[in-house]
Amino acid sequence: MRPSNSFRLSGLRRLVLGVLLLGYPLHGADSGAPPALVVNAERLQERIDRLARIGGTPQGVTRLAFTENDLRGREYVTRLMREAGLEVRVDDAGNLSGRRQGRQPVRPAIVLGSHIDTVPLAGAYDGVLGVMAAIECVQVLEEHGVRTRHPLEVIVFANEEGGMTGSRALAGRLNAQALKESSRSGMSIRQGIAALGGDADRISRAIRRPGEVRAYLELHIEQGGSLESEGTDIGIVEGFVGIRWWDVTVKGFANHAGTTPMNARQDALLAAAKLVIAVHQAARSLPGRQVATVGRLTAEPGAPNVIPGRVELSLELRDLAGPKLEQVFQEIRRQARLIEQETNTGIDFKEIDIGVEPTLTDPKLQEVIREAAEAMGLNYARLPSGAAHDAQNMARIAPSALIFVPSVGGISHSPQEHTHPRDVANGANLLLQTLIRLDRQAGP
Amino acid sequence: MRPSNSFRLSGLRRLVLGVLLLGYPLHGADSGAPPALVVNAERLQERIDRLARIGGTPQGVTRLAFTENDLRGREYVTRLMREAGLEVRVDDAGNLSGRRQGRQPVRPAIVLGSHIDTVPLAGAYDGVLGVMAAIECVQVLEEHGVRTRHPLEVIVFANEEGGMTGSRALAGRLNAQALKESSRSGMSIRQGIAALGGDADRISRAIRRPGEVRAYLELHIEQGGSLESEGTDIGIVEGFVGIRWWDVTVKGFANHAGTTPMNARQDALLAAAKLVIAVHQAARSLPGRQVATVGRLTAEPGAPNVIPGRVELSLELRDLAGPKLEQVFQEIRRQARLIEQETNTGIDFKEIDIGVEPTLTDPKLQEVIREAAEAMGLNYARLPSGAAHDAQNMARIAPSALIFVPSVGGISHSPQEHTHPRDVANGANLLLQTLIRLDRQAGP
Repeated sequence: MRPSNSFRLSGLRRLVLGVLLLGYPLHGADSGAPPALVVNAERLQERIDRLARIGGTPQGVTRLAFTENDLRGREYVTRLMREAGLEVRVDDAGNLSGRRQGRQPVRPAIVLGSHIDTVPLAGAYDGVLGVMAAIECVQVLEEHGVRTRHPLEVIVFANEEGGMTGSRALAGRLNAQALKESSRSGMSIRQGIAALGGDADRISRAIRRPGEVRAYLELHIEQGGSLESEGTDIGIVEGFVGIRWWDVTVKGFANHAGTTPMNARQDALLAAAKLVIAVHQAARSLPGRQVATVGRLTAEPGAPNVIPGRVELSLELRDLAGPKLEQVFQEIRRQARLIEQETNTGIDFKEIDIGVEPTLTDPKLQEVIREAAEAMGLNYARLPSGAAHDAQNMARIAPSALIFVPSVGGISHSPQEHTHPRDVANGANLLLQTLIRLDRQAGP
Repeated sequence: MRPSNSFRLSGLRRLVLGVLLLGYPLHGADSGAPPALVVNAERLQERIDRLARIGGTPQGVTRLAFTENDLRGREYVTRLMREAGLEVRVDDAGNLSGRRQGRQPVRPAIVLGSHIDTVPLAGAYDGVLGVMAAIECVQVLEEHGVRTRHPLEVIVFANEEGGMTGSRALAGRLNAQALKESSRSGMSIRQGIAALGGDADRISRAIRRPGEVRAYLELHIEQGGSLESEGTDIGIVEGFVGIRWWDVTVKGFANHAGTTPMNARQDALLAAAKLVIAVHQAARSLPGRQVATVGRLTAEPGAPNVIPGRVELSLELRDLAGPKLEQVFQEIRRQARLIEQETNTGIDFKEIDIGVEPTLTDPKLQEVIREAAEAMGLNYARLPSGAAHDAQNMARIAPSALIFVPSVGGISHSPQEHTHPRDVANGANLLLQTLIRLDRQAGP
């Protein structure tokens, strides 16, 4: 067998090829790197698996923000950042940041990021994929001696799962009240920030100035099942859904289940059951990806032999478009009026202001991702993100984008969470190609 | 104005009238009593109101079995029993019993009864009406010198609300396990019986021998609203419904409310809502008075932003006929199979054996009540008792009957529980007339 020599290129030919293919001169003339930049998918997977052992048990990975496991995870990530040539610091919000100078240091940075904290008994991919892929991108550039025009920064945001503390702080959206709240670690957010090496008293110093960030790119698992079920490689996220919450109270009349004939009842649970069905129908009767959920429902007094007199339930609506949310809600309320008459009950809706407005990602960045995906032969779909992500806060201060890769079975926040190695590699390579294409573009 | 002298009768004429009207010789020749026996409705109402002050607060009457309030109530009743000429004792089950000899002492007793213990924050009539009316009947007989052929006995059953302890013991249906159970008083049933003056170790002595009771008659408020809504004076209870209970589990899949499209959900609460509606439809689609109730429902995990993965709910069916209960249940299960397919969930029914079979009252006694009601010009309806009553246990050992009077708005177990004075009087007079007619009949 004749050994392949297709990668045996002279320094000059590599430089020419690098410029042609990527628009970069390749540095580090003796590295023997392949001509097209691709991530080391095996290394990436190993790092994801290794981080899953920090806080990992057979029941799931528990690396709650601010805890010992979180700190151990960040130590490991710090080591990887340094290996990738990143200069590491912790900002005053507790975000772990690694930075690499660009060829044109005055340019704003291209920021890649996500998080490594988890919910209790989580999986290996949520957040971690985005962090490890970001480091992998930088490491590949480093190994191939490629220096981008823009500075690059990788951020591990603090406490994503417990309220997106780090990214909110960066966007100047973390108020004093939020610092007082408690976290699953047992610590307040303020104490947790200190545990990470931040300083809540100086948290405003973590805010990024306008123009400081050229773009924010995040890779994440979908957490839903739509990409997998459609056989789609890549999700290009159009935006983050707005979320509206209501507390709904159904008032009937509690009465003896044995002595009250069916036609004389004011059964709050019967009315609530009709409302649950109406909520689903309202969401499904309109075209689009809006979702409506009743997740909490309590019936009082709650005895098998008493007709429920009062039911309290939650109503949640999510969609990318504010008017669609209102349209679905009005349909639900219209149905509720009919149910009230039909069941002789009263149904009240009280909105809880949770302040989650729809947020769109940057259309130009979406286009860059689309072009890169097409060039790589990956098929893609545009879709909203039903879940909140750090990118949502970053979108407030810089052009931001979010790339999804499929989640097997749509399962997340569970040890069953899984993304195929092929999709991990696709996502990381797309992140890399997007970063490179973006870096070539003129700044804003 | 000429004073009416229609009631100024000589002793002889009163005797003749008494024999003609009632079949009894009237005793106590100088009492100046009216010729036809009627209860003293004002006195009866005063006693009901007075008992309501024992344990009474503006929020309701709380006279839990075995507690100090229960004991004070029984002291008051004991005094009234003695005033009515009853010889009072407490049996080994803690039942308070007042007995009056008949003219033919070897005959079995006609027993009247009910209870005076309450649920927390109850009303004034549940149980109390039956006890006070029974005493009133005896007192009227006493005051008019009427001695029945059969001995009369008034029983205040122990702990009706907490499991019908007293009447179950009398019928030989209280087992050792029941004695160990705790009651709302904080005491075990065993301890509670002792507090009332009974002795759980000798409880079998409370069992009545076959033939010892000629008949058991109980007057009670309906607790439902059917008599009132139909404008009916009297309910003649045909029997006590059988009750069947199931624990129902709906298994779906808990998932993220933001990332799971509507058509990919396995929403256990949506399935449960459809089932609640199917339960109501199954009960209402068949002719009859059967009732079906879902009183308890819990959804897990119970967060507004998580699709419920599991719902547990109670199912209760009640009817006088066992086959009807089975028919309704089979229809519910058939619907559940369809809902499983429609919602991609699993629905399991697990029956809880509560041992409440349908129990019929005595048809001959029902006829006596009907004749008495018609003679009094009261309209009546035959109906099942959807609630359990002491009469249900008595029906196991003697011909038993239960008379209902209307409850305003069908409200019971509530301080809003109310029965109009007219209906209180009607019920007590019907009890008296039934007792008198029964006493005239030959024994079994």
